[in-house]
Amino acid sequence: MLLSDNACQVAEREDDLIRISELAAATGVSVATLKYYLREGLLPSGLATAPNQADYGERHVERVRLIRVLREVGNLGIDDIRRTLDAVDDPTRTMHDVLGASQSALAPEPAPAGDEELAEITALLDDLGWAVSPDAPDRRTLAGALASLRVLGFDVTADAFAPYARAVDPVARWEIDAVAARTSRDEAVAYAVVGAVVYERVLTALRRLAHEHHSSRRQAGLT
Amino acid sequence: MLLSDNACQVAEREDDLIRISELAAATGVSVATLKYYLREGLLPSGLATAPNQADYGERHVERVRLIRVLREVGNLGIDDIRRTLDAVDDPTRTMHDVLGASQSALAPEPAPAGDEELAEITALLDDLGWAVSPDAPDRRTLAGALASLRVLGFDVTADAFAPYARAVDPVARWEIDAVAARTSRDEAVAYAVVGAVVYERVLTALRRLAHEHHSSRRQAGLT
Repeated sequence: MLLSDNACQVAEREDDLIRISELAAATGVSVATLKYYLREGLLPSGLATAPNQADYGERHVERVRLIRVLREVGNLGIDDIRRTLDAVDDPTRTMHDVLGASQSALAPEPAPAGDEELAEITALLDDLGWAVSPDAPDRRTLAGALASLRVLGFDVTADAFAPYARAVDPVARWEIDAVAARTSRDEAVAYAVVGAVVYERVLTALRRLAHEHHSSRRQAGLT
Repeated sequence: MLLSDNACQVAEREDDLIRISELAAATGVSVATLKYYLREGLLPSGLATAPNQADYGERHVERVRLIRVLREVGNLGIDDIRRTLDAVDDPTRTMHDVLGASQSALAPEPAPAGDEELAEITALLDDLGWAVSPDAPDRRTLAGALASLRVLGFDVTADAFAPYARAVDPVARWEIDAVAARTSRDEAVAYAVVGAVVYERVLTALRRLAHEHHSSRRQAGLT
């Protein structure tokens, strides 16, 4: 019975199916970890080709990449990952439902940036015409974000950051003008520290609310 | 000698000088803490009116507010506060130097938001025309930021957040469109999680770099 099932599945095998070692290479996740995901049911079984062997398809590659993003970017534990995947696989749940858990996720340290990413960020800042000191730590933050995206399999260049730069540019200018308008140095410093910390929180909260707004409009067919 | 110095200072006393209890009331910092700041040299001495009594002026109010912002918003320890104040008081240091330490500061929990602040945030979101669920946690984040600013003595309304909302709105829309363009649900979720976390880091890093850029231009007299 087992053998005939296998025979049937082998007959369905297509050329783009890959071995578990290839799945590991394609996703940057070790074979041991993939086997753990299979045991935990986070990853659906492959197409069995022998009692202890199976092949995997594009769906597995995507699922492993998603698990990796949830673990490394979303910093989710195994139970939260399972809950998120259950929601992803439930067609009655909207994307907005699915993301509920991840929105409160913590961001871990970004991937270490290489010289290549740093050079790309320098080129971006030059294109923007921004005068920024060569040792500003946020150059490394941006290069690390670029490196993280690439490690996770996203095909992205530093140009992807340009719309974000253009969005914050007028706000930052207005903030610096507001700091400069303070009459005393004590006041200016207090205002600048509050701006750096409290208004950063305001900006990121508003971005999340804007996501909800545009996501609802899209679901309602308004865009 | 001490007495004649005191006599001289009393002669300079102006009507707008206040007692330490009034300084406490004006800044929301307890008398015990003010005495600690005086002992630590973070706060300059007041104008002595008797061997154990002194009066304080507007400069003291500003300095205490600044210390409070550095402690509560910047989350700085006493030594970092002292270093920051030394830099503030050194006329050869630029604002940009002064803020070096605070830029890497951690943000503590925002002040608890009252019903008043929550109602103001609701009015802001209505004005913006944003469809956001009544129990979105970021409503409370924004109301908390507003409450924090008020506790710290900043005279601010929710309207101050509108320019930030307008800055992130087109970016958020573009991000939601990019998520929706993904062909599979796994890909869309991975993209959305990355967007929520990695691009938030990109946005805040770019805002800080834009501050440096506009601050340098201003120092160079280019704006």
